[in-house]
Amino acid sequence: MILQLEPQASVPALAAHLAEQGYKTTDVTTQHAHYLVAIGKKDFDIRTIGQLPGVRDVHQVSDDYQLVSRKWRVKPTVIDLGDGVTIGEGSLALCAGPCSIESEAQMEKVMDHLLENGVRLMRGGVFKPRSSPYAFRGLGMDGLRLFHQLARARGIKIVTEVMQVSQVEEMHDYVDVFQVGARNTQNYNLLDALGGVDKPVLIKRGISGSIEELLSSAEYVFSGGNEKLILCERGIRTFETASRNTLDLNAVPILKEKTHLPVVVDPSHGIGLRDYVPAMALAAVLAGADGILYEAHETPETAASDGQQTLNFAESGRLIRNLRRVYALRGELE
Amino acid sequence: MILQLEPQASVPALAAHLAEQGYKTTDVTTQHAHYLVAIGKKDFDIRTIGQLPGVRDVHQVSDDYQLVSRKWRVKPTVIDLGDGVTIGEGSLALCAGPCSIESEAQMEKVMDHLLENGVRLMRGGVFKPRSSPYAFRGLGMDGLRLFHQLARARGIKIVTEVMQVSQVEEMHDYVDVFQVGARNTQNYNLLDALGGVDKPVLIKRGISGSIEELLSSAEYVFSGGNEKLILCERGIRTFETASRNTLDLNAVPILKEKTHLPVVVDPSHGIGLRDYVPAMALAAVLAGADGILYEAHETPETAASDGQQTLNFAESGRLIRNLRRVYALRGELE
Amino acid sequence: MILQLEPQASVPALAAHLAEQGYKTTDVTTQHAHYLVAIGKKDFDIRTIGQLPGVRDVHQVSDDYQLVSRKWRVKPTVIDLGDGVTIGEGSLALCAGPCSIESEAQMEKVMDHLLENGVRLMRGGVFKPRSSPYAFRGLGMDGLRLFHQLARARGIKIVTEVMQVSQVEEMHDYVDVFQVGARNTQNYNLLDALGGVDKPVLIKRGISGSIEELLSSAEYVFSGGNEKLILCERGIRTFETASRNTLDLNAVPILKEKTHLPVVVDPSHGIGLRDYVPAMALAAVLAGADGILYEAHETPETAASDGQQTLNFAESGRLIRNLRRVYALRGELE
Amino acid sequence: MILQLEPQASVPALAAHLAEQGYKTTDVTTQHAHYLVAIGKKDFDIRTIGQLPGVRDVHQVSDDYQLVSRKWRVKPTVIDLGDGVTIGEGSLALCAGPCSIESEAQMEKVMDHLLENGVRLMRGGVFKPRSSPYAFRGLGMDGLRLFHQLARARGIKIVTEVMQVSQVEEMHDYVDVFQVGARNTQNYNLLDALGGVDKPVLIKRGISGSIEELLSSAEYVFSGGNEKLILCERGIRTFETASRNTLDLNAVPILKEKTHLPVVVDPSHGIGLRDYVPAMALAAVLAGADGILYEAHETPETAASDGQQTLNFAESGRLIRNLRRVYALRGELE
Repeated sequence: MILQLEPQASVPALAAHLAEQGYKTTDVTTQHAHYLVAIGKKDFDIRTIGQLPGVRDVHQVSDDYQLVSRKWRVKPTVIDLGDGVTIGEGSLALCAGPCSIESEAQMEKVMDHLLENGVRLMRGGVFKPRSSPYAFRGLGMDGLRLFHQLARARGIKIVTEVMQVSQVEEMHDYVDVFQVGARNTQNYNLLDALGGVDKPVLIKRGISGSIEELLSSAEYVFSGGNEKLILCERGIRTFETASRNTLDLNAVPILKEKTHLPVVVDPSHGIGLRDYVPAMALAAVLAGADGILYEAHETPETAASDGQQTLNFAESGRLIRNLRRVYALRGELE
Repeated sequence: MILQLEPQASVPALAAHLAEQGYKTTDVTTQHAHYLVAIGKKDFDIRTIGQLPGVRDVHQVSDDYQLVSRKWRVKPTVIDLGDGVTIGEGSLALCAGPCSIESEAQMEKVMDHLLENGVRLMRGGVFKPRSSPYAFRGLGMDGLRLFHQLARARGIKIVTEVMQVSQVEEMHDYVDVFQVGARNTQNYNLLDALGGVDKPVLIKRGISGSIEELLSSAEYVFSGGNEKLILCERGIRTFETASRNTLDLNAVPILKEKTHLPVVVDPSHGIGLRDYVPAMALAAVLAGADGILYEAHETPETAASDGQQTLNFAESGRLIRNLRRVYALRGELE
Repeated sequence: MILQLEPQASVPALAAHLAEQGYKTTDVTTQHAHYLVAIGKKDFDIRTIGQLPGVRDVHQVSDDYQLVSRKWRVKPTVIDLGDGVTIGEGSLALCAGPCSIESEAQMEKVMDHLLENGVRLMRGGVFKPRSSPYAFRGLGMDGLRLFHQLARARGIKIVTEVMQVSQVEEMHDYVDVFQVGARNTQNYNLLDALGGVDKPVLIKRGISGSIEELLSSAEYVFSGGNEKLILCERGIRTFETASRNTLDLNAVPILKEKTHLPVVVDPSHGIGLRDYVPAMALAAVLAGADGILYEAHETPETAASDGQQTLNFAESGRLIRNLRRVYALRGELE
Repeated sequence: MILQLEPQASVPALAAHLAEQGYKTTDVTTQHAHYLVAIGKKDFDIRTIGQLPGVRDVHQVSDDYQLVSRKWRVKPTVIDLGDGVTIGEGSLALCAGPCSIESEAQMEKVMDHLLENGVRLMRGGVFKPRSSPYAFRGLGMDGLRLFHQLARARGIKIVTEVMQVSQVEEMHDYVDVFQVGARNTQNYNLLDALGGVDKPVLIKRGISGSIEELLSSAEYVFSGGNEKLILCERGIRTFETASRNTLDLNAVPILKEKTHLPVVVDPSHGIGLRDYVPAMALAAVLAGADGILYEAHETPETAASDGQQTLNFAESGRLIRNLRRVYALRGELE
């Protein structure tokens, strides 16, 4: 049960009243509103609660995830990154860039490519989770500061991965969207920490994470105080070895029905093979995605990581144009 | 290695010659041509074989599946069902109908619905594989004869499942496409038997079948003598329980690159929930599918089986119109 | 609901009576008894049915699988193959042999090895399901007749795979246990056909078959009239590639609780790597297995198939001695 | 390639020399020794490197994981927790306790139970990763300090989960073994941090982590400077829903062959259902496990978490006695 509170509400009084009825409450204050989430029995008469002083509205939500549920908030959430860049219904968000930030020259080339194609959202990792301790782990904060400086100068917004709690503060001023990677989807301390900042967070589905677990991870950040959330399907682990992962487009319509949050798709990690990335990106739009996040690099074959799933600029430009045509058609379908 | 033979070729002489070189050969005669498939070492000088008497052409194919490989036959295969109904590149094949054939009235209503929407391919099971021995197993041959009679009268082609070798002959005259279900993808005796008939065969991917296993199953039928094959992605088994199966659209572009055979998608079994079927069907077209096979019924809630994933006629009509618009756009993309 | 009937019971009268109460009935006559399986509502007063004429006993079983459920038949089923060879509680059944029957000399060597070690159950395939149509498919009926002749002369019982309905009759007189392979676990026509013979059937779990599906497959054979069933865990398909399959020993205690049928384990296909087979075989006994089925060959490196998971005779002899010690200890544990 | 160094070795000189040969080096100093790990081409003449000044020994290891590989260190690692408590070959490590630490009374009862059964290793969570943000998250540091005080007084060693980098330092003096949970197996910052402390670390396999990824995670900690590592199989995510997870005992013999580190098994999370935990624990010992970690509680039905997979004291006592008998037999097998 979610209680949306008036500014003058007395949380202790409401919590005590609900405790008597058998509810455990969590006080949630976000950028936008003040809520009391109550967990407990489900057959209580909702009207008596709605009449308590300080309660603006009451919603009964029976799922484990509450605040991210569409049963409560019917209107889709749109994330506004400023300067006219948004993620959510009403537009198709496009975000491209290299797996890893490598150098000033590399970033400038990608940015030029994006701007030529009207894309103003760039992805690029400065902290890289690598399964081998001996692999390249990214340029770190120096790389991020440079990334930020170049992006700001061009009106480009940055999406980049945060890997641990201590990075949240140091990265804060240099990112537009914090990305939580597939290996950290259930890193609850990190999710808690991101609940405390006023920056959008894009949460990738876990490598073998269920749809419900992804929603629960989002609930962590929201209940920590941050409503600005984006969910990302990026492929799951199955028995099939012909693709790197199995991009699960089924998750897109299912998530869109269950949550009010925007849902984007990463076909690069999803299928993991360059030749197939465009087809899966286009398919994702018709599955209902609010945006596409993919890897692009001037010369994928020399990229520091993930080159085999990265598009070159010609392929990327073509994909952008095709995505826009498909998105336009989506709006016209019955 | 595939040797395409001249009519006058001496197979014993060629086989003996290849055996000396360390190859084991299989003689394959299909509706369209005569081949010798040679398995063995891979570093032989192909030119000396190409000059043997009776050999029209030689193709080196290093995969386990040979005859179905696109490395050998570059031109996509198109299955012609007669009366202008085809499956394969150049058109989008649409095939709909109930999970199970139930009655004359039911079939007539579906056929009317299909014809109103310009669809001339109907699916419907008369032999139903059911996990419980106490469940409805279909109307059998009586149902099929009636299905055939009604379809012929309307110019509609029939796709229906064959479950065992003994049914191949009795069903033969009443079907246009034999369907091999997901539980029989590796029923090699059935595949062998279907290699011996001159009717198209649609092979569904196994419930946990790899893409390579699907191609190997097709190789069985082709090497048995039947080139008229269609592959069908219908969802795989993963850990995710939010959908009935995980429709693996990744398989579509991968199969299209690996084989010259048409690839169709069954979103009804794939995601298993009616509300999400249209989105996945549309996505499948952009992933590259040559056709869509889905379940439709006048009143899904009363269907004898699979009602929860079956579209009603209004939903089905809308889907058909949308699929055609998407397919038209696909042809215009860069 | 299962009704165990008296010899003089009138099935039509009982079925009609139950139909009035809303039950659909299936008449099941096996080697041992006569049953009526009733599917329908679950809140009926069982006592009124127990008093009907011809009803010996009534059991309420709420699962999809009924006749194979331990909720109904508490006493474990023991399969008696004659000559003192049994499979089921009270002894540890050991069954070994090559993947494929290759020659008279090969079989004699294996039989000598087994008899030296007191094992009188031999496995060996004459019909081999192979994913490639060009691979060795077994010696067929000629091989089986020879296998049978050699085994009879030595008091050895035969377990071998049946792949299709038409083989059931021709193989019948030459096998002691029909094996249904992992690719045919849901070949319902084959299961139906095996319900009609009076020979034990060993059903392997499907490659990605759930425990419940395995029980449902057994229900097919039982409800077809054959109570002599053995279930076999043989590894499932998961994301892990370090082993050929993932031998799921969890299935052993779960199956032993759910069904009265014997449960055996095949560690050779399960883990698929020779060095690890003995450890998994021993573990399986403590997990509760009633028997172990594994691959042994005089010279695994020259075996026609599956050599990489086959033990040589020295390894096999050692395993047999260790299995017996572990089984003896199992009987002494608290 | 691993170079074991003499105390007086000049790392810069060696690194420079190896860089000329095309190797990238990582300097690793652990509690026990000083190494240089070199990644690069694999066909170099190892003898010329072995003769460089300061090099004690050179090992060629071709896997991604190097320092944890058994190809290099053949002798099994034994972790000594002091006071005669060890984990590794030569004994069977038993570790039991509640999922969550709840109260002083609860801990005292568990400790009494363990000591009565000669077990001196106790598990219990104070920081609990929970998929819902509204669930009980553990007693935190207050609970741990009390846990430590009670354990020290009784000579009991503590295994408890660390969830983030900032906890490593505050927990350090109160734990005997840091546990990395299945959701943090690829939390590389946490692994890095644990590489910097001189306390044993038990790493659980990821929920869908491959065996190779588990070894790579251990390589992180080892290359960070901490050799005291234990690996734990705890069940993987598959399609099967009859058990909570699929305990993968195949991983035990495979890990024991690939690494010199001790391998323990957690059957409680592995199968997730109390009735089946003892069978899987016993099976794990014959699969080759060096220890068993399971959940025990005075009254599982009232436990704060995971009650459905927790043994009561009578069940736990019986399991301990049986485990010891099985382990004794393991030592006697051929």
